[in-house]
Amino acid sequence: MTATVKPDHVRLYIPGPIEVRPEVLQTQARPMIGHRSADFEALFARVQPKLRQVFYTKSRVYVSTSSGTGLWEAASRNCIRDDRKALHLVNGAFSERWAEVSKSNGKQVDVISAEWGKAIKPEQLAEALQKATQPYDAVAIVLNETSTGVKNPLEAYVPILKQYPDTLILVDAVSIFGGYKIDFDALGLDIVLTSTQKALALPPGLAFAAVSDRVLERAKQIPYRGYYFDFIELEKFLVKNNTPSTPNISLMFATDVELDYILAEGLEARFARHERMAAMTRDWAIEMGFGLFAEEGYRSPTVTTVANTRQIDVKALNKFLATRGMTLSDGYGKLKDNTFRIAHMGDLTEADMHELFSATNEFLAMQPEKA
Amino acid sequence: MTATVKPDHVRLYIPGPIEVRPEVLQTQARPMIGHRSADFEALFARVQPKLRQVFYTKSRVYVSTSSGTGLWEAASRNCIRDDRKALHLVNGAFSERWAEVSKSNGKQVDVISAEWGKAIKPEQLAEALQKATQPYDAVAIVLNETSTGVKNPLEAYVPILKQYPDTLILVDAVSIFGGYKIDFDALGLDIVLTSTQKALALPPGLAFAAVSDRVLERAKQIPYRGYYFDFIELEKFLVKNNTPSTPNISLMFATDVELDYILAEGLEARFARHERMAAMTRDWAIEMGFGLFAEEGYRSPTVTTVANTRQIDVKALNKFLATRGMTLSDGYGKLKDNTFRIAHMGDLTEADMHELFSATNEFLAMQPEKA
Repeated sequence: MTATVKPDHVRLYIPGPIEVRPEVLQTQARPMIGHRSADFEALFARVQPKLRQVFYTKSRVYVSTSSGTGLWEAASRNCIRDDRKALHLVNGAFSERWAEVSKSNGKQVDVISAEWGKAIKPEQLAEALQKATQPYDAVAIVLNETSTGVKNPLEAYVPILKQYPDTLILVDAVSIFGGYKIDFDALGLDIVLTSTQKALALPPGLAFAAVSDRVLERAKQIPYRGYYFDFIELEKFLVKNNTPSTPNISLMFATDVELDYILAEGLEARFARHERMAAMTRDWAIEMGFGLFAEEGYRSPTVTTVANTRQIDVKALNKFLATRGMTLSDGYGKLKDNTFRIAHMGDLTEADMHELFSATNEFLAMQPEKA
Repeated sequence: MTATVKPDHVRLYIPGPIEVRPEVLQTQARPMIGHRSADFEALFARVQPKLRQVFYTKSRVYVSTSSGTGLWEAASRNCIRDDRKALHLVNGAFSERWAEVSKSNGKQVDVISAEWGKAIKPEQLAEALQKATQPYDAVAIVLNETSTGVKNPLEAYVPILKQYPDTLILVDAVSIFGGYKIDFDALGLDIVLTSTQKALALPPGLAFAAVSDRVLERAKQIPYRGYYFDFIELEKFLVKNNTPSTPNISLMFATDVELDYILAEGLEARFARHERMAAMTRDWAIEMGFGLFAEEGYRSPTVTTVANTRQIDVKALNKFLATRGMTLSDGYGKLKDNTFRIAHMGDLTEADMHELFSATNEFLAMQPEKA
């Protein structure tokens, strides 16, 4: 395998799975090692401080062989007591689903919502917290709504939430983590969860969660947390540089190597690159006569949802792009017909974005003008 | 990467993760594809009938991005109603843990047990079923106890269990699946679950479960099944050749290719090879003056637990074997000091077993006689 694009290889500009470096993919072809071996423990011990660096935390980062969805379940089951409630902030398909996950585990949930494409405003959160007759056990925030391209104002929520010391702050950072600074310790967050196949530029199959001591204290008060996503169980093994059940070892190899690339680039430089790619993408969309679906001031650094105001045939666009070895994403769910999405995350570069734009422009030039 | 053993590559004779063909490992280095793409759906659709063949079923086989432990949780949460009980058969560390998993999900559990190293006898099961005041919602059976090397007599349980039509038959086949015939449809089982890193000879990170219609009917009666391991949710996506959350795509590539190898060998031939390797291992152990920990008549075709009657230093043995590019496993949990385990599963061959025995014999020849 070489770094050049093969005819059978379509470069992904979709919001996960994302493009993975050939050198990192290749680590997944390494021979297996036992997960209870000294070699695995050394691998785990090597990865852990790098993860903590990317999470900006001195706390632990759990490794789960699952998608990010699994860690939603973990967060809900470990943090919400049976006689209390959680507040879910819902403004898109993924935040809606997390609320469903809490409910499917028998948890009581209140929801505040905003129209798809809008952010949940801090005032809205403040009002909901004030109105509650009992402090919420947790507030569940999807930082970056992959369906709409909206980034919620987490940093503005924090001072409000700090007035409710019993309320744990749970953050889904799945489609933004690794492309945007989330300072776990400075913000005083309780859970930040993510998965490998987004801005971390790894294949799917593992998920990570930074977890505060407060969460572990809370978990001890909840009798039925299950097993696979039980933080108390994960903690018992983490301190031994291991996991309770057999982890995905190939992806641990890949994580180890990709985190080296990430730290070599520098986190701040990486975040700045994501901002530049996002700005380029927005500028291109506007220039080509499209709209931007997400509310101004709340646009994601990792994925842009383009309002398909030119009503182009996105399927036809992707067919054309495939001949150039590229693909972008159609709109999500109910936005399928009137938006399309461009991911600018992970290890994609500005040059990669230029290639996508110029190929798309070629396609657009071939389209008949619509009345 | 070539098929020859590199100096840095230690061949695994441990009961998972197990040795993986270099050609299969290499598939994990393929570029990513989107999981909502036509390519992924084609991959899923290609893998599904091969999985059904290995499970001997016309029913569906769910694909879970987790270890087998995750599917224990799935089985317990989808099959046991809140006001009913499950019966767990416990005769080793893993069957004990599955019972814990049920309990950690708030399920009511009865246990029948046998000493480690012994099988649960059909009469014992019959008695427990008879004694129960209400039919059990499910019976949870670990077919192959990885900790002890005991294979429980599943085939003899079935006619007994068939007298209790409300009792679902849940089988953990983790460390035996792919090395032993489990005829899902002919036996009328309800769940057979396994993971990739054992006798299927794949890296860890995915788990599979054949699931009967009866399980889906039962699941509908259980309100809080959670989300990540909810069979109803998995079913919604399976019919579209997909999974509810992002799956491990690299391992789906690997599964596709490894199943071709397995079916090319032929299932019956594969099972026979496992029996031969198991017999060789038992013969070698006896010949070298060791005992066999598992009860006669119930010895596993995939892993042999050797009673360390010669009191050799297993750590020293493994150190020696490492210089020959091999490793076996120490005893599990409380058996750590008085047993060691040899896995003979997956794609290991009789020649591989001979290599292990002759290297071990070299080590044994260097040991002083114990009084």
